[in-house]
Amino acid sequence: MTDREEISAYLASHKRAIEEALSRFVPDESHYPPTLFQAMRYSLFAGGKRIRPILCLAAMDALGAGEQLKKAALPVACAIEMIHTYSLIHDDLPAMDNDDLRRGKPTSHRVFGEDIAILAGDALLTEAFHLLSKKELTATFAAQVILEVINEISYAVGCFGMIGGQVVDVRHGEQEMDEGTLYYIHHHKTGALLTAAVKTGGLLAGADEEKLLALEKYGAHMGLMFQIVDDLLDVEGDDGTFKKRLTEETSLGKLTFPSLLGIEQSVKKVTELKAQALEAIETFDDKARPLRLLVEHLATREV
Amino acid sequence: MTDREEISAYLASHKRAIEEALSRFVPDESHYPPTLFQAMRYSLFAGGKRIRPILCLAAMDALGAGEQLKKAALPVACAIEMIHTYSLIHDDLPAMDNDDLRRGKPTSHRVFGEDIAILAGDALLTEAFHLLSKKELTATFAAQVILEVINEISYAVGCFGMIGGQVVDVRHGEQEMDEGTLYYIHHHKTGALLTAAVKTGGLLAGADEEKLLALEKYGAHMGLMFQIVDDLLDVEGDDGTFKKRLTEETSLGKLTFPSLLGIEQSVKKVTELKAQALEAIETFDDKARPLRLLVEHLATREV
Repeated sequence: MTDREEISAYLASHKRAIEEALSRFVPDESHYPPTLFQAMRYSLFAGGKRIRPILCLAAMDALGAGEQLKKAALPVACAIEMIHTYSLIHDDLPAMDNDDLRRGKPTSHRVFGEDIAILAGDALLTEAFHLLSKKELTATFAAQVILEVINEISYAVGCFGMIGGQVVDVRHGEQEMDEGTLYYIHHHKTGALLTAAVKTGGLLAGADEEKLLALEKYGAHMGLMFQIVDDLLDVEGDDGTFKKRLTEETSLGKLTFPSLLGIEQSVKKVTELKAQALEAIETFDDKARPLRLLVEHLATREV
Repeated sequence: MTDREEISAYLASHKRAIEEALSRFVPDESHYPPTLFQAMRYSLFAGGKRIRPILCLAAMDALGAGEQLKKAALPVACAIEMIHTYSLIHDDLPAMDNDDLRRGKPTSHRVFGEDIAILAGDALLTEAFHLLSKKELTATFAAQVILEVINEISYAVGCFGMIGGQVVDVRHGEQEMDEGTLYYIHHHKTGALLTAAVKTGGLLAGADEEKLLALEKYGAHMGLMFQIVDDLLDVEGDDGTFKKRLTEETSLGKLTFPSLLGIEQSVKKVTELKAQALEAIETFDDKARPLRLLVEHLATREV
């Protein structure tokens, strides 16, 4: 089995487990009011790659957690995906990026209306914290550890994390179109939750301070790399719509690495960050193999 | 000192303590990005009566908690107020109620734009859970109790609580304009968080199952009463703008008790609910005096 086959199999089996769990944790439209649950599940099952919850579970693997412990951690993995989904719904709103499509499907507000899209996002965020506070988790993990997980995640997606990044992204002025602002946006808007996903896996698997710090560094480098690859995919796509989107975003004042540094420098940056992510966890034994293969996979991904 | 003077003094001193704590817990615009923190604090300090956090502390009083324990619970009281504030910001959005004014001041989206208003709401909700997971609380309360508090609050404001109520409120059809729908909306949109505030105070003060149930009943009756009084204030206000608002809301298909049952029946309902709220906590001793005076105050409030 090649590395590529190995990580593909890992991704597929974990994606399946996460989606099964999500479907159990998020009520369907047989509940009242049906529109709300429809909207929540519409975006939740709109073709996400589940990278964040998989990173959480891969970090647990790296610490030697068994399948039993990983299974018990599924509510945390799912809460992370629910928060990611809420952020996409709100980012797509007319008042923000005003996107009609997400992963080739109509965005939430196009299907359900702006009011329901806002509320479905609010609900996914709220239900994520509800899931994190349920008794299921304390059957396996210490209440204090769960509180640390909630603390970590809420910080990552709050005003000093994802929301801060989004505010700067929608509101940065012309004079701020520099590399520093771009780093700020990427580190906060994308990097913070990716890092929290990895670190949370470490917390649940009982990582010590040193390992947690290593996972945090891994997450920060990998997170930035992930976003630059995302930017590059928009430029390099053969499909004309990608290039069109880049042009539009650039004219809207959207910052991207390729538009700021050029494609060549951006590709070089990806290689550097990949190496730094791997270096951060070099003292980990072979159980960190999924984390290692994941960086490689995310550096060369095509979607 | 009359009852009215007594509860006025209680409300004033607790409001002050809560606002001081809120100002400590929510960072100001010296932080980056300043617009976000400005928007969060603009709505947070826009003249709220702090009824929900005060109810939380009054429930602690009813259980005999001392000033020290109440002080330690301020992060919980503040988190509840932050969640209430987020819900107001999102309710006022153009896609929802499209309100230009709230408590006589321009609404968040009128001041900061729709994008920042949505994000400031998101941030207040997220930071509320962050506050609930901080180490300060576990210095005094058991981690398990804090998780129960998070569970209680997140349920109350999630899809089976406040957000469910808001979805029905913005989307109920003509055929649903009946008493059942009205109860559903009020119980969920307003009642759930008011009840959770009271119950959370009970949890923090170590209430047993029986007392918790009593507090929950008190909260449910008082919450519905609170909302009917709110509806009545809109009709009975001497100021013409109130009546205008009622007419507008009615023509927009907004349900209210006065428009459905008439003023006389609505006033009768308030009296009934007040009695039921008091009855729910009749086995409590005199330490429940603030909870008792609060019901009376809220039944006869003029704003």
